[in-house]
Amino acid sequence: MSLVVVGSVAFDDVETRYGRRNPVLGGSAAYFSVVASNFTAVNMVAVVGDDFPDEHVDFFKSRSIDIRGLERKPGKTFFWSGKYADDFSTRTTLATHLNVFADFDPVLPESYRSPDFLFLANIHPALQLKVLNMVEGKPFVAGDTMNLWIDAEPVLLKELISRVDLLTINDEEVRLLTGEFNLIKAGRMIQEMGPKYLILKKGEHGALLFLEDSLFFTPAIPLEGFVDPTGAGDSFAGGFMGHLARKGTVDAQTLKEAMFYGAVVASFTVEDYSLERHRTVDYAQIEERFQQLVDFTTL
Amino acid sequence: MSLVVVGSVAFDDVETRYGRRNPVLGGSAAYFSVVASNFTAVNMVAVVGDDFPDEHVDFFKSRSIDIRGLERKPGKTFFWSGKYADDFSTRTTLATHLNVFADFDPVLPESYRSPDFLFLANIHPALQLKVLNMVEGKPFVAGDTMNLWIDAEPVLLKELISRVDLLTINDEEVRLLTGEFNLIKAGRMIQEMGPKYLILKKGEHGALLFLEDSLFFTPAIPLEGFVDPTGAGDSFAGGFMGHLARKGTVDAQTLKEAMFYGAVVASFTVEDYSLERHRTVDYAQIEERFQQLVDFTTL
Repeated sequence: MSLVVVGSVAFDDVETRYGRRNPVLGGSAAYFSVVASNFTAVNMVAVVGDDFPDEHVDFFKSRSIDIRGLERKPGKTFFWSGKYADDFSTRTTLATHLNVFADFDPVLPESYRSPDFLFLANIHPALQLKVLNMVEGKPFVAGDTMNLWIDAEPVLLKELISRVDLLTINDEEVRLLTGEFNLIKAGRMIQEMGPKYLILKKGEHGALLFLEDSLFFTPAIPLEGFVDPTGAGDSFAGGFMGHLARKGTVDAQTLKEAMFYGAVVASFTVEDYSLERHRTVDYAQIEERFQQLVDFTTL
Repeated sequence: MSLVVVGSVAFDDVETRYGRRNPVLGGSAAYFSVVASNFTAVNMVAVVGDDFPDEHVDFFKSRSIDIRGLERKPGKTFFWSGKYADDFSTRTTLATHLNVFADFDPVLPESYRSPDFLFLANIHPALQLKVLNMVEGKPFVAGDTMNLWIDAEPVLLKELISRVDLLTINDEEVRLLTGEFNLIKAGRMIQEMGPKYLILKKGEHGALLFLEDSLFFTPAIPLEGFVDPTGAGDSFAGGFMGHLARKGTVDAQTLKEAMFYGAVVASFTVEDYSLERHRTVDYAQIEERFQQLVDFTTL
């Protein structure tokens, strides 16, 4: 089944208690695509500047990622710089240079127009809606968002939410969006706004899937080698959507498995900066860690 | 199998975003005993003042709790007052009046001296050690502690840790005690200090069991009716030790089940103030919620 992602490709400058890396490959579409490509072919829609090196493009190509939707424009690539608190409870953005991303106007290549699965990574909800309007057929659509859009574009965001099948959102954002402190009540309120499913992301504390009338949980996999959480959420989404697209079904059992695959691939991402860890992970290691997660949570 | 707990019985004055209750029954031994009594008979060692009402004593008696070890002394019962931040991330202690607990000198009644299972709730490590020295035979011993003793009594605490089979400790405390930020490494460091097993408590984010060469996790059960986390840790311990004592074995499978029972009974505790919720919970409801937890975590 075909899978399309629309999001960002960026250069990141990241500092955690374990060190700093700059500049490294980042961006939601980069994390999503590289990770999802462990499960299925991925069609990427994003924009980079003329400073984006061929080596990164070659990395994408080497992973069965279709980059016909990766536009290259004159100017610089999106740049983000951030620093995590020593306990990782907060992240401070030091710089955001949108550069060519400021005028990002996603266009789906003809060959991407009828996807079976579509992930709208965290970009302006007007662009997410534009992509939705461009799509033909009835794909399974998952969308991500952030506090910025909840504050700045509540009307557009609510329209977007009403049109996705699944929303991914973190605990802070779901409280902001609904005004409800209790996460279960807040999640159910989001489902009443449209999405059949919701993934409530809690970072190192795991992720909660709201199904129609039940809940399913995956913890984050405990790691001795944790160094940088950047990209964990988009990696989770990549594993989650990659597994759905591979299976070609969206039933409760497949969604639960997808949660575990999401946690597994995110656990590799956070073991190194950027996407470095994924250069050496093979599929057998993904299955091995999947089994570890099963043992970690199953009586 | 016989189960003994040594800890506090107290009056609490608790305020959360959902309201305030004062004075209510509290204390580690109270939570532990009432909860564990769902699984097995419990022998309680604690001290109260002459202001402690018969109604609470009758409540203990009604739950197959042996109170021959509940000493009543002239003076007032231990009093604690605290307020939780709106997001429950922190708890501020407003008052601690030790009262008769200041001179607590636990003595095990003759009939308690050879327990099969012993829980040393969070009291001064010198008293925990005193109890350990009083015990005959080779019980399975679990101990709890807190940051106060890590700072104030590091030598005694380390002796205590070297002598328990299982330590329960939260994420902040394990970092303080070991100087290691990574929780998995920190947990393994504690195991090298003596305990074969460790339960790392993460409050609303669940609890992690360190077995000899693997890890097992239980999330907290998601609740729409959460109101007050006071006593959740001691309730967890009560469910955990209660199940072990009921089964009479300490193998990996039983320990994993005990983690789930701990999460189940703690989830009832936090649905009301004090031990109120447990006045109406019957064992069938415990099994029903246990099955919910299995469904919540199992593919």
